[in-house]
Amino acid sequence: MKKKIALDMDEVIVNIYDRFISLYVEQYNVVPNPEDYVGRKFYNVKGAENFRNYLFEPGFFLDLPIFEGAADVVEWLNTHFDLFIVTAAQEFPHSLIDKYHWLQKHLPFISWKQFVFCGDKSIIKADYMIDDHVHNLKTFDGLGLLFSASHNINENGYIRLNNWNEVKLFFEKELENEPVR
Amino acid sequence: MKKKIALDMDEVIVNIYDRFISLYVEQYNVVPNPEDYVGRKFYNVKGAENFRNYLFEPGFFLDLPIFEGAADVVEWLNTHFDLFIVTAAQEFPHSLIDKYHWLQKHLPFISWKQFVFCGDKSIIKADYMIDDHVHNLKTFDGLGLLFSASHNINENGYIRLNNWNEVKLFFEKELENEPVR
Repeated sequence: MKKKIALDMDEVIVNIYDRFISLYVEQYNVVPNPEDYVGRKFYNVKGAENFRNYLFEPGFFLDLPIFEGAADVVEWLNTHFDLFIVTAAQEFPHSLIDKYHWLQKHLPFISWKQFVFCGDKSIIKADYMIDDHVHNLKTFDGLGLLFSASHNINENGYIRLNNWNEVKLFFEKELENEPVR
Repeated sequence: MKKKIALDMDEVIVNIYDRFISLYVEQYNVVPNPEDYVGRKFYNVKGAENFRNYLFEPGFFLDLPIFEGAADVVEWLNTHFDLFIVTAAQEFPHSLIDKYHWLQKHLPFISWKQFVFCGDKSIIKADYMIDDHVHNLKTFDGLGLLFSASHNINENGYIRLNNWNEVKLFFEKELENEPVR
């Protein structure tokens, strides 16, 4: 039986920081200083305190870029594991339909049956969880994998995956270590 | 620590069959024969073969009635248990936002953090699952409770709860049987 993976969207598959940087440049004609947001939230950047409001706008989540390498590795994971996309969406009600369409556009090989839109991930049962938020990994019973994001670079205590190449390498090893049935 | 309940919406909290009956009466000026849908799907009723299409219409899930007694008992469950509303929504994309607003209107004491909109419930971890579909209970590790609906009256093998009064009685007993900590 394939092992189950709960895979987060925002800042794991979907690149929100790059969009925030673009919005900042549009507004101020200057690139934000990475020192102001690496290791913290982007809202720490002077002038970006209200950028969280963008998350509540219809269409914001529909139009975000995908991380390099993500689509190919997600497709590979989808053939070797029981994959679910588990994303916190309910805080931003418009994101529900936006995320649905984003997934259909960028990862068309994933069925709607594999989408999970939730608020609190403590209800998720899987063998692995890939997430950029430690608070989601803390309530998880399986193996929590921290996907590197600007805001979590100072976090310790979890296996860290820095990019999609590392995700593939990690899960290739997991498959090798599986007992032959 | 409170025990976790995964509570379904459609045909458990939300009364879809009554809406189907109203739609049938509107269309044909005659009440459908219960023999044609009790123990089966409503789509078995002659003339209602295409009623499933209603589920894809924007607003359909927004305007459905709540089952008698459900709101009070859900509020009671919410104080004594770690309650999540776990509903299959992704098959009907418009239902995502409709269900969000329905829950806010009818069960305003439930936070969006407690909403889970999914396709396949095999990813859910809880102590109890209340659902009208045996296929959801089959993949569940906790105690599955079958909520009676027209389409499941011939199912066996699960504790059956016939109405919201029985839900309350069942969980009152569960609380009594909890070891004192």
